[in-house]
Amino acid sequence: MSSESLTLHTDKYQINMMYAHWKRGTLNEKAVFEAYFRKLPFGNGYAVFAGLERIVEYVRGLAFGEEEIRYLRTQEENYEERFLEELRSFAFTGSIHAVPEGTLVFPNVPLVRVEARVFEAQLIETALLNFMNYQTLIATKASRIKQVAPQDKLLEFGTRRAQEADAAIWGARATYIAGFHATSNMRAGMRFGIPTSGTHAHAWVQGHDSEEDAFREYARAMPDHVTLLVDTYDTLKSGVPNAIRIARELAGQGKRLRGIRLDSGDLAYLSKRARAMLDEAGFPEASIVASNDLDENIIAELKAQGAKIDAWGVGTQLITAFDQPSLGGVYKLVAREKNGKLEPVIKISGNPEKISNPGMKEAYRIVNRETGMAEADYMTLPDDEDICAGKPVELVDPLHRHRFKRVDNYEALPLLTPIFREGELVYALPKLEEIRSYHEQQLTQFWPEHLRKLNPEQYRVNFSPAFLELKDRLIRQHI
Amino acid sequence: MSSESLTLHTDKYQINMMYAHWKRGTLNEKAVFEAYFRKLPFGNGYAVFAGLERIVEYVRGLAFGEEEIRYLRTQEENYEERFLEELRSFAFTGSIHAVPEGTLVFPNVPLVRVEARVFEAQLIETALLNFMNYQTLIATKASRIKQVAPQDKLLEFGTRRAQEADAAIWGARATYIAGFHATSNMRAGMRFGIPTSGTHAHAWVQGHDSEEDAFREYARAMPDHVTLLVDTYDTLKSGVPNAIRIARELAGQGKRLRGIRLDSGDLAYLSKRARAMLDEAGFPEASIVASNDLDENIIAELKAQGAKIDAWGVGTQLITAFDQPSLGGVYKLVAREKNGKLEPVIKISGNPEKISNPGMKEAYRIVNRETGMAEADYMTLPDDEDICAGKPVELVDPLHRHRFKRVDNYEALPLLTPIFREGELVYALPKLEEIRSYHEQQLTQFWPEHLRKLNPEQYRVNFSPAFLELKDRLIRQHI
Repeated sequence: MSSESLTLHTDKYQINMMYAHWKRGTLNEKAVFEAYFRKLPFGNGYAVFAGLERIVEYVRGLAFGEEEIRYLRTQEENYEERFLEELRSFAFTGSIHAVPEGTLVFPNVPLVRVEARVFEAQLIETALLNFMNYQTLIATKASRIKQVAPQDKLLEFGTRRAQEADAAIWGARATYIAGFHATSNMRAGMRFGIPTSGTHAHAWVQGHDSEEDAFREYARAMPDHVTLLVDTYDTLKSGVPNAIRIARELAGQGKRLRGIRLDSGDLAYLSKRARAMLDEAGFPEASIVASNDLDENIIAELKAQGAKIDAWGVGTQLITAFDQPSLGGVYKLVAREKNGKLEPVIKISGNPEKISNPGMKEAYRIVNRETGMAEADYMTLPDDEDICAGKPVELVDPLHRHRFKRVDNYEALPLLTPIFREGELVYALPKLEEIRSYHEQQLTQFWPEHLRKLNPEQYRVNFSPAFLELKDRLIRQHI
Repeated sequence: MSSESLTLHTDKYQINMMYAHWKRGTLNEKAVFEAYFRKLPFGNGYAVFAGLERIVEYVRGLAFGEEEIRYLRTQEENYEERFLEELRSFAFTGSIHAVPEGTLVFPNVPLVRVEARVFEAQLIETALLNFMNYQTLIATKASRIKQVAPQDKLLEFGTRRAQEADAAIWGARATYIAGFHATSNMRAGMRFGIPTSGTHAHAWVQGHDSEEDAFREYARAMPDHVTLLVDTYDTLKSGVPNAIRIARELAGQGKRLRGIRLDSGDLAYLSKRARAMLDEAGFPEASIVASNDLDENIIAELKAQGAKIDAWGVGTQLITAFDQPSLGGVYKLVAREKNGKLEPVIKISGNPEKISNPGMKEAYRIVNRETGMAEADYMTLPDDEDICAGKPVELVDPLHRHRFKRVDNYEALPLLTPIFREGELVYALPKLEEIRSYHEQQLTQFWPEHLRKLNPEQYRVNFSPAFLELKDRLIRQHI
């Protein structure tokens, strides 16, 4: 079914602008767009970039087929046939740079930079933001959960509450990048190779004459994978004692109960009591999995109360990023071709933080050579500075320019990596496991003060003096 | 690509339970599940059911192909080959009843009822909830917006902030059911026939030497579809005066400016000033479209302040249901086959409202014959009551049983419609326009007190005495 094609996964105004450019003969003019977000989600100190693999797949698949052309022909705009002909031969021929997935990222740093014919750069805006916004949001939410339970097993259980099918799998992938260990979603497992995890439902217990029968039958069917859901009737009076009975029977067969799952009630109290009961009965290795509307705050609270929980099944709050279900990533024109040359452009707004950052930029992570820790992200205009040479730089707060810090013994790591060059994919997409390890390693470059979930210390994002001068000049031109 | 198949769009524990049923030879036992939600989202007085078309498409497409089988073979559970063989011939052979899309629905009323081999009923739980939860949530959010701007044009503009690609199109469809007029998403337009809408972006303006040039060029390219975005530099000093200039030029060619779009700033003030400027210049028909993080509360507030806005472009808040991004729909086993007979089952919980409603149920909407208005939804056990005969019924509040209301002159409209019968689709899926009209007509059956967005009067959801007796009996058996 050709409607699986994502080519029209775009806003109508992109098609209209493409049409207008085509009409006036400017479709081939070059444009540079940068995608970034202005504000970190959840009050977190960082975000985790994700979505690149999806973007790459999408860009490579761009093609206007018969169905798309036929559909466009029905539009009230009455697009000329010659425009539709132009679309038939559409392919992405531009260049894209992006931050690798799993990178810790910060506000106002370009995460994806598109240099292409305006005709192409305009089309891809919507999908690129859709993928980047959601996947980065979920990776960031998952990372917050990982921060409060770094040693525990983390399971993504959210499919039934995800915002439709794509969110379930791409969300699961984002949580895996951020350090989750498994997902319940089998399609995500098949597609991305993420380990999958699952036990049984309340319906299994209800489908038997007694809870004990239900547990026994489950253990008989899958003797090597017995984790029992103990809260269908009464966790401590019925569920755990029945689970212990089954654990004894399994032990008699040389098998072992893997664990139990708590899915309601006071998880702190129940887990401590269940742990004691299991230990007393001689099953200290049986683990306790908890679920039920968990998020990073509840998990931290439960841990602070000494809950005896080894694994956390996190659903709704994670897969929808419940407390902030959208990352406000934007895609802004920063330069355009004029008389054969790229010129920086700006967008003014009454809202100062919405004024765009003009000009095509390079983005560097300044890493202190003595500590090995990231000091700041630093944006420059290309060719105008020699940060790569390692000369001392001043990190100037863009809002309060009297606040600055001088760094000299540093390494400037480029954040943006070439992905497409003139339409050709030049980036070897890393394996998911590599992305996950890379992310883990990324975290070690940041002080814990930036990583804590509440009131983190703000990480520096700075712009070079030449950039700030350009911005001032353009603002003055427009006000 | 076979990974587009949604057959594994399910949780692993469903596969494990299917395996356990297969192992113990109970895979063909019949089970009845009902899907419903317990609490209305957004503090609204009703929800708008959506998701059925997607569920039907999914159920019809269920098939374990080579890729799925190969994947399942890799799992640590070591599923037996004969089980995988069983999956190869898997098809849905059960029956499904559901509420038609666009119906106003309420807590604890079964929205989808699945009667099938437990093997099948278990597999489909996750996807069914995933589709129903998201689409019903978005239709409900859209309906709230429609309530505050019933006469205005409503545009869905959320794709870039939607939670991935599926959410964008199925969400757009849900908003259209609830009375929105168009979406910006072209793929949704192509797939569902929803009208699409779009103007131009800030990038169009930035891509020209001046705003006036940009407007003129746009008008030249699409003279019959000129809506100009006026806030790139300064709405009242630059944007609107330039738009008026273009309107005059268009008038000289016998064309007209369709309107302007405001995307930032104080929309109440700006729209009133812009309206006055357009009127004064002789363009009273040029419409004003507003966007910028709108939701039902902001729109209501702007209207209360006399904002002169004709069309609302609603994005993030709508497509993610920002203030409550998940509907907590559940899918509960209500009856199972035992010795060849269906027996009701219950799930107990320490949380009283989480105790499930046992037994396969019929659901009726009690409509008062005198007023034509809905009085309550009423659930009965099948074959045990004669509500269809129109005998007087007592509507008893299930939590406070001393509160009841007797109705006699009523019609009992069955809410659940047969969708699949023994695996066969017996429901003619209505066209989207039909669903939209049906929904509009639905609203006329409810008193405005139930429809208002803040503190609506609670609509009655009642259960028959025979049902309440059954529930009491089953609870006593388990406590």
